[in-house]
Amino acid sequence: VQSAWSVNGGAAAVDPRDRGLAYGDGLFETMAATDGAIRWLDYHLERLAAGCGRLAIPVPTDVELRRQIAAQTPPRGRAVIKIIVTRGIGTRGYRPPDDPAPTIIVGSAPWPSPDPPSAHGVVMATCETRLGENPQLAGLKHLCRLEHVLAQLELKQRGLDEGLLLSTSGHVVSATSNNVFASFGSRVCTPRIDRCGVRGVMRRLVLESCAHLGLEAQELDMDVADLLRADELFVTNAVMGVRPVSRLDDTVYGVGPVTRRLAARLGTVAGD
Amino acid sequence: VQSAWSVNGGAAAVDPRDRGLAYGDGLFETMAATDGAIRWLDYHLERLAAGCGRLAIPVPTDVELRRQIAAQTPPRGRAVIKIIVTRGIGTRGYRPPDDPAPTIIVGSAPWPSPDPPSAHGVVMATCETRLGENPQLAGLKHLCRLEHVLAQLELKQRGLDEGLLLSTSGHVVSATSNNVFASFGSRVCTPRIDRCGVRGVMRRLVLESCAHLGLEAQELDMDVADLLRADELFVTNAVMGVRPVSRLDDTVYGVGPVTRRLAARLGTVAGD
Repeated sequence: VQSAWSVNGGAAAVDPRDRGLAYGDGLFETMAATDGAIRWLDYHLERLAAGCGRLAIPVPTDVELRRQIAAQTPPRGRAVIKIIVTRGIGTRGYRPPDDPAPTIIVGSAPWPSPDPPSAHGVVMATCETRLGENPQLAGLKHLCRLEHVLAQLELKQRGLDEGLLLSTSGHVVSATSNNVFASFGSRVCTPRIDRCGVRGVMRRLVLESCAHLGLEAQELDMDVADLLRADELFVTNAVMGVRPVSRLDDTVYGVGPVTRRLAARLGTVAGD
Repeated sequence: VQSAWSVNGGAAAVDPRDRGLAYGDGLFETMAATDGAIRWLDYHLERLAAGCGRLAIPVPTDVELRRQIAAQTPPRGRAVIKIIVTRGIGTRGYRPPDDPAPTIIVGSAPWPSPDPPSAHGVVMATCETRLGENPQLAGLKHLCRLEHVLAQLELKQRGLDEGLLLSTSGHVVSATSNNVFASFGSRVCTPRIDRCGVRGVMRRLVLESCAHLGLEAQELDMDVADLLRADELFVTNAVMGVRPVSRLDDTVYGVGPVTRRLAARLGTVAGD
């Protein structure tokens, strides 16, 4: 699968005046495709529409989004599909135009290769890089991701792939490209996303799945000490699904039954 | 003066995989040009290089930046010149490539017209929209500006052009597209830029000019009450220079001698 991109259904060129580039004025979704089908597409489009609503970006029609996504999704094999929706081209300055015409950018990328050895678990360290807090942006998968880039720069220097991100006030928020969960017996806990962080599609699926598995889901304020006391730790995103964490800083975790059951239900990994 | 843009010195098309678009992974400068000359160009390029250093983006050569800027600067009249430097095209994911090739985007836009009536002063209200705090990003003119966009959306609804931005912890940071200064006698005060905000080129020039004018410059923590007690209030940016504030919320200010002297020294407005 080669990389392929379209902008508003046409050639892969973005106008340099696009507000997505100028100000991070837009949103994105990263999705898993298998043999032409996007996993959890309804949830991705629902989150995208909700995000546009919060930013007062006109929501492209569902038909249009699905058409442009389908056009970039390879009919065979696995691929990662990304969609970006920006507020479109603007005149100079932060002020949004009166009548914005959103830009829709869709691309496919090869599936991550080699597939991370999920069964062995993700090795994770707490990042020095912190996330600023702003309730107005919390939960949104917006384009302003410089903090995540800096966290990945830090991890690269430390020879790690995934890190634990804290907010500037010291609360646990997420992993760098995943949400994070800790289980205590049958209680499945994840940080609240009310001051920063992304409300992940797989995070939502995990929270919704708990009831079906006789588990109790909780969103709450958590700090690192809470994670270190957990029976199991796992991370989630829409591409890699549910993956156990084998180590956070100096604490080692096994792959437990809660992680296994959620991974079995929500597809992907944990067993292979 | 028509809008005109170049990307890496060539056609005005940005690759949809550019990390500036994907993650706000880049920086920008907005500059004033008159008859082909950029005001304060050395300071803009110095800040741009410092920003690249902090983000570990390779700094394009000074010669290259000046060449691309010159190519987009109209030889006659006034224009606003913008340069964006991003970390360039990336593979999927937040992690920066090992060997990034920065993208340089330069554009010119017509001078704001009608020229805001600066002599009458800027009318400003305190925004509900707040700025998140993150010392790692403070001072940088990076591309992640969604908070400023939301502030401008708020101001638009309220029928105002410029707002006062506070941090989530309640400190004064800046105006929406300007830095802010308050004078108390011969003391010229501006908020510290250590947790959020942009270290403006005109802000630097004002601070440096104070010594020459027998004024005392101070960077400190300020709250709205401090501004309301000020003798004079003014805002600064590289395009519009020094402009008096005539009103903040319900408090009215005159155009005083400190603002007039700084405006006279640093060019632009206050008198016309």
